[in-house]
Amino acid sequence: MSQVKEFESERERLNELILGKNNKVLKRIFNLDTNAFAEGAIPVKTKEMLGLVASLVLRCDDCVKYHLGQCHKQGLSDDEVNEVLAIGNLIGGTIVIPHLRRAMEYWEALKTES
Amino acid sequence: MSQVKEFESERERLNELILGKNNKVLKRIFNLDTNAFAEGAIPVKTKEMLGLVASLVLRCDDCVKYHLGQCHKQGLSDDEVNEVLAIGNLIGGTIVIPHLRRAMEYWEALKTES
Amino acid sequence: MSQVKEFESERERLNELILGKNNKVLKRIFNLDTNAFAEGAIPVKTKEMLGLVASLVLRCDDCVKYHLGQCHKQGLSDDEVNEVLAIGNLIGGTIVIPHLRRAMEYWEALKTES
Amino acid sequence: MSQVKEFESERERLNELILGKNNKVLKRIFNLDTNAFAEGAIPVKTKEMLGLVASLVLRCDDCVKYHLGQCHKQGLSDDEVNEVLAIGNLIGGTIVIPHLRRAMEYWEALKTES
Amino acid sequence: MSQVKEFESERERLNELILGKNNKVLKRIFNLDTNAFAEGAIPVKTKEMLGLVASLVLRCDDCVKYHLGQCHKQGLSDDEVNEVLAIGNLIGGTIVIPHLRRAMEYWEALKTES
Amino acid sequence: MSQVKEFESERERLNELILGKNNKVLKRIFNLDTNAFAEGAIPVKTKEMLGLVASLVLRCDDCVKYHLGQCHKQGLSDDEVNEVLAIGNLIGGTIVIPHLRRAMEYWEALKTES
Repeated sequence: MSQVKEFESERERLNELILGKNNKVLKRIFNLDTNAFAEGAIPVKTKEMLGLVASLVLRCDDCVKYHLGQCHKQGLSDDEVNEVLAIGNLIGGTIVIPHLRRAMEYWEALKTES
Repeated sequence: MSQVKEFESERERLNELILGKNNKVLKRIFNLDTNAFAEGAIPVKTKEMLGLVASLVLRCDDCVKYHLGQCHKQGLSDDEVNEVLAIGNLIGGTIVIPHLRRAMEYWEALKTES
Repeated sequence: MSQVKEFESERERLNELILGKNNKVLKRIFNLDTNAFAEGAIPVKTKEMLGLVASLVLRCDDCVKYHLGQCHKQGLSDDEVNEVLAIGNLIGGTIVIPHLRRAMEYWEALKTES
Repeated sequence: MSQVKEFESERERLNELILGKNNKVLKRIFNLDTNAFAEGAIPVKTKEMLGLVASLVLRCDDCVKYHLGQCHKQGLSDDEVNEVLAIGNLIGGTIVIPHLRRAMEYWEALKTES
Repeated sequence: MSQVKEFESERERLNELILGKNNKVLKRIFNLDTNAFAEGAIPVKTKEMLGLVASLVLRCDDCVKYHLGQCHKQGLSDDEVNEVLAIGNLIGGTIVIPHLRRAMEYWEALKTES
Repeated sequence: MSQVKEFESERERLNELILGKNNKVLKRIFNLDTNAFAEGAIPVKTKEMLGLVASLVLRCDDCVKYHLGQCHKQGLSDDEVNEVLAIGNLIGGTIVIPHLRRAMEYWEALKTES
């Protein structure tokens, strides 16, 4: 299975495990996520860039992959992605570089598979 | 080997490597850990919940697994575990969700293997 | 004004500013907070200890003060508070000590003022 | 002096102290910052939102204030600012709330003084 | 009172409060700190640089001040301090800059007062 | 392939991917890294210890491995490495232990392969 498909199916499988627990707080956090990234005063495309840079500086590979997938759906260009990643790397420092490496590789995979 | 056994044997193997170095500071940090989680004014079960939530908000998968194992030994119910994880996820934000996913899966493995 | 009163009135003033913005996501996050710390499978007193240790390892003075205030209302003893703080300090390391200092001072203020 | 003026003059005074040291690495980091936030494939206004959300999830009050100032110059509306802050708060969790409080207050000050 | 004196006396006052609690784990963490920074295979001067860079990337102003004080006692030159701070700033990113500003100012105060 | 070789070739492969993007900010961050760790007022060997401790407290396995490799080239003894890791573990807390385990194992691999 491709890197993208593997990530997405694993994510879906475990989200179902979490939501099946019927914990109200966890369910609402998941709902809020959908809400926060919906079209508003700020367009969805920009919001996904916000999600990407926040995930990168907090150094969460899975979150970076998820938002890269959303950015891909929103039609971001290579240059736009690179500029978001560059800002994240400057703010977050060289400690972010290993996550940048994996992000760049995942972005290439997203382009290849589409 | 099961996920639980694999985690525990790898952990033990590398702890022996560390303690074999005879570095006094590292040895004492390991001893302090035993000390801090021993029965005191706060019961062991509650202390393990504290260890779990702290590990989750700091986003350390191995630490989460270790404390989930201890919580399992202390007889925590599913609901108790879910409430600890929910608090950790609320305080730590959605950046914690990938760790929550792996925590939920590991908890299921702990229940299956016992 | 005392340290406790000053903290609480400032917190209330700015919470009102935030909630007055009518941003749905922010309002729901505030509601979730009330929800997550309500009596459940885990009693309120234990949940406040969880909130305290999570706030300490994440090194947020205001969050530590808030949960110390809640722990005080829940009747935690000195020994219980010290054990929570000790666990937080061990897990989070000596980088937590400056926050531990301010936490200890605030706990004393809470006891004096009640 | 107003909160905004005080922040800006203190920031400028200490930047001069740093740049006066003639450390090449530090000077270049400062230059890179100007570079990364300049108009590119992504417009300046969006880049400043990226800087704001990254600063918020990393919980740096001074960085939040700086980027709020830049967002103000770029003409962000209240709703846009609130949506950026909401995304940061959701991703970063309730541990971010004290920084959200101070951000909201500073945004009001920016609007008052302009 | 000077910035240095104020920091040191406040630190001492609150350390006494903590140690007066007689919590064994906390006392031992404080002892370990003395131990870890004592002369060993690595000389004290180098160890204090390690403490400084670790404090800076973890963005703890009080810890940075403490280790700057120790570096001053160990006779570090301006250039040495600047190089440690530059490495910390590069690894930790521009989010570290506000702490760098306060560190630079405190270093000047240490030199003035000695 | 050995653990060391695998890490190094993967790192090189992805660095090339990043640098091939021709993003000016990212390229300069990579250049700055070479610059900051070059011989200066502080010798290279000490700078690599600074890089190691900063990477450890920020809990980045790849960064720890990279700086361990550099420390090995600089001829650090076992005792010196252990003391750096002990300081990092004390400052960063027990949450660092899983990274300490992997660091110790990688250090052994470096010694075996040379």
